[in-house]
Amino acid sequence: MIQSPEKIQNAGVMPLRFEDGRVLLLDQRLLPESLEYFDATELSDMCFAIKEMVVRGAPSIGVAAAFGLAAQAVRLAKSDPPIDSIKAGLNDARLRLQATRPTAVNLRWATDKLFQAVFADQAALANAGDAAEMAVWAAQTMLKDHIAINKRLSDFGAELIEANDAILTHCNAGPLAACGWGTALGVIRSAAMRGLNPQVYVDETRPRNQGSKLTVWELHQDRIPYTLICDSMSGHVMASGKVQVVITGADRIAMNGDTANKIGTYNLAVVAQFHTVPFYIAAPLSTVDAKIKSGAEIPIEERDTQEITNFGKEKMTMTGAHAYNPAFDVTPNKLIAGIITEYGVLRAPYEVSIGAALEKARLADFAPGSAGVPPA
Amino acid sequence: MIQSPEKIQNAGVMPLRFEDGRVLLLDQRLLPESLEYFDATELSDMCFAIKEMVVRGAPSIGVAAAFGLAAQAVRLAKSDPPIDSIKAGLNDARLRLQATRPTAVNLRWATDKLFQAVFADQAALANAGDAAEMAVWAAQTMLKDHIAINKRLSDFGAELIEANDAILTHCNAGPLAACGWGTALGVIRSAAMRGLNPQVYVDETRPRNQGSKLTVWELHQDRIPYTLICDSMSGHVMASGKVQVVITGADRIAMNGDTANKIGTYNLAVVAQFHTVPFYIAAPLSTVDAKIKSGAEIPIEERDTQEITNFGKEKMTMTGAHAYNPAFDVTPNKLIAGIITEYGVLRAPYEVSIGAALEKARLADFAPGSAGVPPA
Repeated sequence: MIQSPEKIQNAGVMPLRFEDGRVLLLDQRLLPESLEYFDATELSDMCFAIKEMVVRGAPSIGVAAAFGLAAQAVRLAKSDPPIDSIKAGLNDARLRLQATRPTAVNLRWATDKLFQAVFADQAALANAGDAAEMAVWAAQTMLKDHIAINKRLSDFGAELIEANDAILTHCNAGPLAACGWGTALGVIRSAAMRGLNPQVYVDETRPRNQGSKLTVWELHQDRIPYTLICDSMSGHVMASGKVQVVITGADRIAMNGDTANKIGTYNLAVVAQFHTVPFYIAAPLSTVDAKIKSGAEIPIEERDTQEITNFGKEKMTMTGAHAYNPAFDVTPNKLIAGIITEYGVLRAPYEVSIGAALEKARLADFAPGSAGVPPA
Repeated sequence: MIQSPEKIQNAGVMPLRFEDGRVLLLDQRLLPESLEYFDATELSDMCFAIKEMVVRGAPSIGVAAAFGLAAQAVRLAKSDPPIDSIKAGLNDARLRLQATRPTAVNLRWATDKLFQAVFADQAALANAGDAAEMAVWAAQTMLKDHIAINKRLSDFGAELIEANDAILTHCNAGPLAACGWGTALGVIRSAAMRGLNPQVYVDETRPRNQGSKLTVWELHQDRIPYTLICDSMSGHVMASGKVQVVITGADRIAMNGDTANKIGTYNLAVVAQFHTVPFYIAAPLSTVDAKIKSGAEIPIEERDTQEITNFGKEKMTMTGAHAYNPAFDVTPNKLIAGIITEYGVLRAPYEVSIGAALEKARLADFAPGSAGVPPA
């Protein structure tokens, strides 16, 4: 831990740029060794980029797809077609984008929302150019909303951090994945901005090593001091008194607070409890799945066991070894000290606090001119 | 888990063979992809093999070095030198072997013991040939003792296993490391021999992946069904009710039962306790360090962080990433359900049970004709 934190830049390392009508994605397949942008302006290129994980992290995928739709609108508008024609073209693009990863909820939500925003008041559109302009505006608004929500929850989270705290995190929940600022890493970035000098222990996060590949790299960009460890070392580090707080992101939160996140989060929560280190989840309220009462209802995706048996070109075990590769696990609410959202830090009983926050969000979303960001 | 257990062979995959005066080491650097023997008959080759981890696992290193000394005795005896001359030559060889890994307690113990066995009754040696014969006999006795002790403790351990139990293990504590039969894996092998049909979950054991590389391979040889998982998946697997027992080996045991073992053992013990899954250590009594009262006195070796940042030729993180790589951790006695030794399963309070077992061992070691193996 030899670095010292300096100014945290802007929104963090952004997973995408929109310049002169072009959509450029930071190619996350090449990180951290190489920082290259992938031009996803053409619809087919954006579909490829989502499928092949050039862009990853549910929120980032959604926003990237929205910009993909916007770029398509700009292209279609060039020949000044009738409104109905550009609408049909964009609807087709929307369906093609959604087909790239059929189970990605954020991808569908973002593209549906953009499409609806453009054609909600179709009579107000004078021509195809208006539709294209509206699409670009809606995509940019969506991006700004993501950053604003993450910053908001990060401000709430930073209140939990004391000066010089060491924070342990798992997987990657920074600006690359969250499309700006970050969630778990957002809290840490906000704490650094406040001059609290946070230190970070980064779980490498087997088997895909998002911790060692992405979180380490993002912290390095921000000059926040970090130490990479193997997932199995958290207990040893905590027993040495080196960790004051654990914060991770979330993939899905049940109405009772049970939280699905990257595999290994549950082990970490158990180990934190054993050491009486508080374990927090940081996630926007949109991560709550109101249809799911408890973690028992969350299905756990199993992924290809090659993720465990091989690393790049290296074999990690015997050819043909039998393995099991659950991608997520569920941390029960009783292990969670709080859920850091843009509506504040929710505490147990979560049935009550999550319900109340969702109701506030519903009201805010209906307020005129609101883009779903809670009032400052 | 599609395989079904069949006959467990002999003592297991042996890390060494002694044939026609040649010492052949199974090259553990090449496992599991390739099964090749390394000729370590020449003293310089044995020194290289120990240093470069052709042979690994503390007991296996000790026995290999003893055979290295024996092979040297055979070579020196060919010119029929005076006893004092072969003694000086073997003493020199002993010191050279011990210098290869200066902190390896077993290596020193085994080579000292062999040297003493040969020259304990120097007057009884008619010539150098007698000394060489004695050296070979002592090395072979040491090997047999290892197997006998491991089988003994494995029999005690197998009493803890019920039919169709799934056992989770960490790192590698099989015949390759323990020089025959195995400790944690020995218990599982004995259970399989009894027809208990054990299933095994194997922690890959970051960062050096001894679980995925060696334990998986050894279980495959024995046709014991196994499933490889990442270290961070143990909680998810236990929460699903899939694990009945956890057993690991040990590197060093304090007099109060606190146990140092491969990094990640502690996390596993904490997670096991949370799920009320019993956590056992399997280790010969020689693993107890009578000079150490509690785990607080056990120094934790830090290894090169390149073990975390790279895997073979693949980079796992950003160049220059800051990491921390403790090789071991200490599991406090309160998390240990029992310590499986050749003197039975020791239970809390460990100060008492370990002390009593050491006293029995001391008496057995002084019994005439005994090689330290407890009576059947």
